[in-house]
Formats: sequence, structure tokens, C-alpha cells
Amino acid sequence: MPTFELKDIMNFERTYRKTLMNKISGLKSVNLIGSKSAESISNVSIFNSVVHIGANPPLLGFIMRPLTVERHTYENIKSTGFYTINHVSESIHRNAHRTSAKFEAGTSEFDECGLTEKYMGNFAAPFVGESQIQIGLSYQEEHLIEANKTILIIGKVEKLLLPDHAVKDDGDIDLSILQSVCVGGLDTYYSSKKIGRCAYARPHLPIQKN
Amino acid sequence: MPTFELKDIMNFERTYRKTLMNKISGLKSVNLIGSKSAESISNVSIFNSVVHIGANPPLLGFIMRPLTVERHTYENIKSTGFYTINHVSESIHRNAHRTSAKFEAGTSEFDECGLTEKYMGNFAAPFVGESQIQIGLSYQEEHLIEANKTILIIGKVEKLLLPDHAVKDDGDIDLSILQSVCVGGLDTYYSSKKIGRCAYARPHLPIQKN
Repeated sequence: MPTFELKDIMNFERTYRKTLMNKISGLKSVNLIGSKSAESISNVSIFNSVVHIGANPPLLGFIMRPLTVERHTYENIKSTGFYTINHVSESIHRNAHRTSAKFEAGTSEFDECGLTEKYMGNFAAPFVGESQIQIGLSYQEEHLIEANKTILIIGKVEKLLLPDHAVKDDGDIDLSILQSVCVGGLDTYYSSKKIGRCAYARPHLPIQKN
Repeated sequence: MPTFELKDIMNFERTYRKTLMNKISGLKSVNLIGSKSAESISNVSIFNSVVHIGANPPLLGFIMRPLTVERHTYENIKSTGFYTINHVSESIHRNAHRTSAKFEAGTSEFDECGLTEKYMGNFAAPFVGESQIQIGLSYQEEHLIEANKTILIIGKVEKLLLPDHAVKDDGDIDLSILQSVCVGGLDTYYSSKKIGRCAYARPHLPIQKN
């Protein structure tokens, strides 16, 4: 198996390194983050870095690229305090990918990418109407990563919309039923097929599945 | 679509809430993190929170649960400064899941879970021999998340082992060829099938695939 040292990686051509480094951690989550500016311009962008932070209270995190260029999602979250995280299924993965294009200022990715901008009561941020799981969050905290100036954003789940048929009695969600996709790097989409659900692991007991 | 507010979520039974909240963000990455204590006891544990932080320099992050109980991975990383992130494919997903069991102190999950402990030169942390992508990292920084005392750990890629046949000329890795799996929550494994690779998105151009 070929082995590369850090100095080899740093000597890779820039685009090659970017592509490869984005893929080495394997399959990743893919979600759409919705937000709205103080001037009422809505925004929706694709992110492959949403992580579970906690269940009690319910918290999710994601990584924002450095603020060296305008980042509408960041500015909107900071100015309104609210945003949404929305599930990407196979049927909307091309629309979701399209949100990564740099559209002209003042336009909404919802319109440009064929996604439905949906509001719930007085919640400040738009949900993605097509998404099978829609989560409304309030901004909690952020952490500047010194090594490259990316930012971890933490939010608390304030609203959760779920399709009844995919949630089991114990809180399990079958992501195959939702036709969830995941992503390799920034550009390659994968469909998913359930292999099995493993039992809570205990020493010296086999891993049963249901 | 049923809608839950934060107060509803906080009123859910504890295990139900934990299961549901771990699943709402969709499919997640799954990796094995290898480390070794100052007393030379090796450790390998499954994590579903590895995120890409940057390509230049190459950085990966992951979330560590609160330090309210002994966390060998954290202690080992802090004492040696090094750890590994290793790919989980379908053939080892049961072994990988098994590492989440609470084994007796002084035992290594490598032995208990049928995974091969592999060393490279004088790199301080063990790689997982069965993994198709093996990454050696040096500890860079950590961030304590105030909301629930979890910790974001950032590491720099120092060594990278990749299977030649899965890497294309432009740095793309086909994760289907590697039989990569992803995970829903803490217990449900999914196999992946490539749908397609989308072109870099530009306004007003269709999303082509290759």
C-alpha cells in the first residue's frame, strides 16, 4: 500500500491535494443549511460537515470555511441567531449540489436551485420544503480553529420535522426509507442500503443485529 | 409531517431521545481511531464524527464525548501526541462496532475485536491493518464545547496509506470500490453505491456527472 508522508502531501499539486484530502475520511453526511439575512435575503448551502454534538440538550455542529470571502450562511446565522439543517435525499441531490455555485449577490439559492423555501410560524430561517428531515436551530457558540481559521458552529435543535413512517417506536430512523445520500469529498454522491443494526456492544458477546 | 419543539424533545424518554437525536443528521462517516498509552497499552475505538477541516495543511477533526468517565483515546492522544484514523469497510464493520464495548482495563480492543494492530516505523500510534485507508495524525489543538463539555480534537495528517487501485489521476477516491460503510446514529450500518460525481457547480449551468 503506497505511503505518503506530510511532506509528500504538501508537495502534491494544489487541486489534487484538495480532492484527495477531502476524500480520505470516507463517506460523509450531506445537509442543506438554510438561513436568512437581516435584509430578508434567504440562503441555502450544502455542507458535508454536520456532526452530532449531543442529545441532552439536542446539539449539532458544523464546520464553516474561513471568513476570507463573504460567507452568507455565517453572517445570517450571526445576525438572526437561527438557521436550519435539512436532509438530502437522492431525489434532490443535484439541486443540493447546485447550491455550492457562486450566485450573484441578492439572489436566493432556493430559486436558483429549484428548492422550496418554507417558513414555520415566526422561526427566522427557511426550511427546505423537499427535505424529509427538517431541523430548526438556534446559534449557541463558535470555535475558531487556529490551524486554518475554519470555524465550528454549534446550534441547539429548536424545531424538528420528521416523517412519521420512518421513525420506529424506539426513536430509530431508517435512513434507507428516506433515500438518504452521503458524499465522498465535495462532489461524489452515494446512495445507501441498510446492512443491519448492531446491538449495544458488550464484552465477550457477539454483535447481534436487528 | 409531525413537528416537535425543543420542549417536546426534552420531554422524550432519555433513551428514545438519544437514539432519535443521533439519527436526525442523516448518514455519517465511521472511522476507527487508534492510539497507545504511555504504558504501551493500545486502544482502538469507533467514531462517527470525523470531519474534514482542511487540505492545506491536511487537517481532520473529531468530537470526543465529555471526560466524565475515563476516555483512553483522549488520554493517549494527549500523552503521546499521535493517533490514527482508519477506514471502516463492510468486511470489518462488526469488528469496528465491537470496539464500543467497555472492555476491562489493561486489555486492547485490537485483540478483543479481531483487528490487526499495525505499526509503521517509529510512529507512536497503531494503525488498523484491515483498513483500506490508514491515516497517522499529530495532535494540533482542542476546543471544549461549553454547551455540553464535548471536545473537538484537531489533528494534522502525518502519514497516509492508500490503496493504489482506488485513487484516480486527479486525487479522487472511489469509496464504492473500497466498500466503505457509513452509519446512522450509533448502531445502524449502511453500504454505499456511487450515484455519480457532480461537476464543480457554476451558476446557470447544469450539474454534469462523470
